[in-house]
Amino acid sequence: MPKVVVDIFGADNSPHEIVAGCVLALEKTKDVSLVLTGSKELIEAELKKHSGVDYSRVEIVHASEVITNHDAPSNAIKQKLDSSLVKALERTKSDDDVAGMVSAGSTGAVLIGGIFKVGRIKGISRPALCPLLPTSLGGHVALIDGGSNVDCKPEFLTQFAMMGSIYAQSRGVENPRVGLVNVGVEDKKGNELTHAAFPLLKEMDINFVGNMEARDALSGNYDVLVADGFIGNVLLKSVEGTALMIMKRLKDTIMESTSAKIGAMFMKGAFKKFKGMMDYSQLGGAPFLGVEKILIKSHGSSKATSIAASIQQVIDMDKANLIEKIREGVQGEKKIESTQE
Amino acid sequence: MPKVVVDIFGADNSPHEIVAGCVLALEKTKDVSLVLTGSKELIEAELKKHSGVDYSRVEIVHASEVITNHDAPSNAIKQKLDSSLVKALERTKSDDDVAGMVSAGSTGAVLIGGIFKVGRIKGISRPALCPLLPTSLGGHVALIDGGSNVDCKPEFLTQFAMMGSIYAQSRGVENPRVGLVNVGVEDKKGNELTHAAFPLLKEMDINFVGNMEARDALSGNYDVLVADGFIGNVLLKSVEGTALMIMKRLKDTIMESTSAKIGAMFMKGAFKKFKGMMDYSQLGGAPFLGVEKILIKSHGSSKATSIAASIQQVIDMDKANLIEKIREGVQGEKKIESTQE
Repeated sequence: MPKVVVDIFGADNSPHEIVAGCVLALEKTKDVSLVLTGSKELIEAELKKHSGVDYSRVEIVHASEVITNHDAPSNAIKQKLDSSLVKALERTKSDDDVAGMVSAGSTGAVLIGGIFKVGRIKGISRPALCPLLPTSLGGHVALIDGGSNVDCKPEFLTQFAMMGSIYAQSRGVENPRVGLVNVGVEDKKGNELTHAAFPLLKEMDINFVGNMEARDALSGNYDVLVADGFIGNVLLKSVEGTALMIMKRLKDTIMESTSAKIGAMFMKGAFKKFKGMMDYSQLGGAPFLGVEKILIKSHGSSKATSIAASIQQVIDMDKANLIEKIREGVQGEKKIESTQE
Repeated sequence: MPKVVVDIFGADNSPHEIVAGCVLALEKTKDVSLVLTGSKELIEAELKKHSGVDYSRVEIVHASEVITNHDAPSNAIKQKLDSSLVKALERTKSDDDVAGMVSAGSTGAVLIGGIFKVGRIKGISRPALCPLLPTSLGGHVALIDGGSNVDCKPEFLTQFAMMGSIYAQSRGVENPRVGLVNVGVEDKKGNELTHAAFPLLKEMDINFVGNMEARDALSGNYDVLVADGFIGNVLLKSVEGTALMIMKRLKDTIMESTSAKIGAMFMKGAFKKFKGMMDYSQLGGAPFLGVEKILIKSHGSSKATSIAASIQQVIDMDKANLIEKIREGVQGEKKIESTQE
């Protein structure tokens, strides 16, 4: 039975929603056991609020400290050794039965902790966040790097492409279409980085379909988008910001008109469904790809459903042998390099 | 009476919508005369479709060629000397009565033509596109550079900030709030470029409010967003792509439910109003700031209303003395530099 470690503290809704998410995951999936890190007293108090918890599949690892968004990430990982996050990372690293972990805490601390406590997969230069975004066609597109590494070298981008492809495959996408985020679709478009990365991506054993204009990012024509972490973060956050702006202005426009308000009552169900589709936290969190275990960064404001989805992600990625496939991917790269030499 | 040059060809809806936009502008504003460039025969035929055109305020400059999106921009500007765009640029440059020009043709050709035919303002390193985006609060934010210059140096960004501020002021914004597009709001966030640009922006005589996360781009908390052209283009196009995706999925969701379809009938007026607000082409086009005359790049798919709005933009920017103020801005920069030496 795969084990998943869950960092209960450091998130906006800690500990109640995170514990509730764990309970939900235990109910949904019989074939998983959980390790919860954080204040034993508080976690036990939260668990007691739920009935029918299968305690045989729950272990609590006590931690007295919490890393918050106000802590400098690298200092926090070094100094708050009794924090729920550090305890979670250490257990994930040391226990062979642990498939991976979930945290909705400080993104910076999770990423730095992932590298220093769990460790990079040998040969991976830069692990990278790989969030999913909704597309026009009802599916999703994986964006790598979503913001972990700025000032990337072209070789980092090829590893992002490899890891993103493997991740998309693990989600059931055959022959994922990989696009390079750029300012136009023509081969010669771009800046120094994309000019250098383009030919490298073309040579790879992936389905690289060329440069992509950000207007097309959510069109459904791509399964994986590759970008420097600065660019990826701007893309990701622009999508979020635009969705917020549109929903706000749509609501304002509706509230100005009586007829529209009546219409909105008829559309309540559709609006709810639509909001659910847009809320990509329902899919779980963003995997941090390139470290030795599966590591899911859930949104800081995660609710129980999102935490349960993140736990399910670890289970699915473990079943798909994701880490092993990334290791093989790195080996494949080396083979190509040595053939070229 | 200010004169505005309009390039009639090279756009998706040339010549009919562009000519119709000119007619609309003449009707709306009595205090403007227009110079239309392109095939005299075709322009005259289009003008004849409209009644009550004030021909005393219309001049046609014949041009036999058209620059299309398939032409390599710099070659086209050099070789298609009898194109509607080159003729428009040359007239804009040479005629002191011309306040500026509008083109909905090839973006690349308009920008390169702007630099080589109209010329940079002395001291400006890189002219830059400055499109407007809608915000949650119902206003707009100017983004500079929207995509003209990749691999920018920190000094380019300070000039973008200066020009963007002056543009926002010309639109009636007092003390425009300038944000640096970044991966977080903290001072130390970012990549090499933003790290270097941040202190320079802080020293400037503008209302620099610090780093901005793209999630906040359309919040209404900023009047001007400064970015490298690659970043700016990704932001701009992500906003467009997200809006398209959301409208598509909202429509799909409504069409799946009878009740929602009924609701949509009540909301027809509100939806129409909302669509109008989102359609920023209604505001006109994006000015290309830093060249010697006002140059508005209208969207390739511009309709008559958008062309008329672009012509109005030239008139407004001319009234606000935009070019002169940018010249003064460059002088101001130099003074600061010499004080520092």
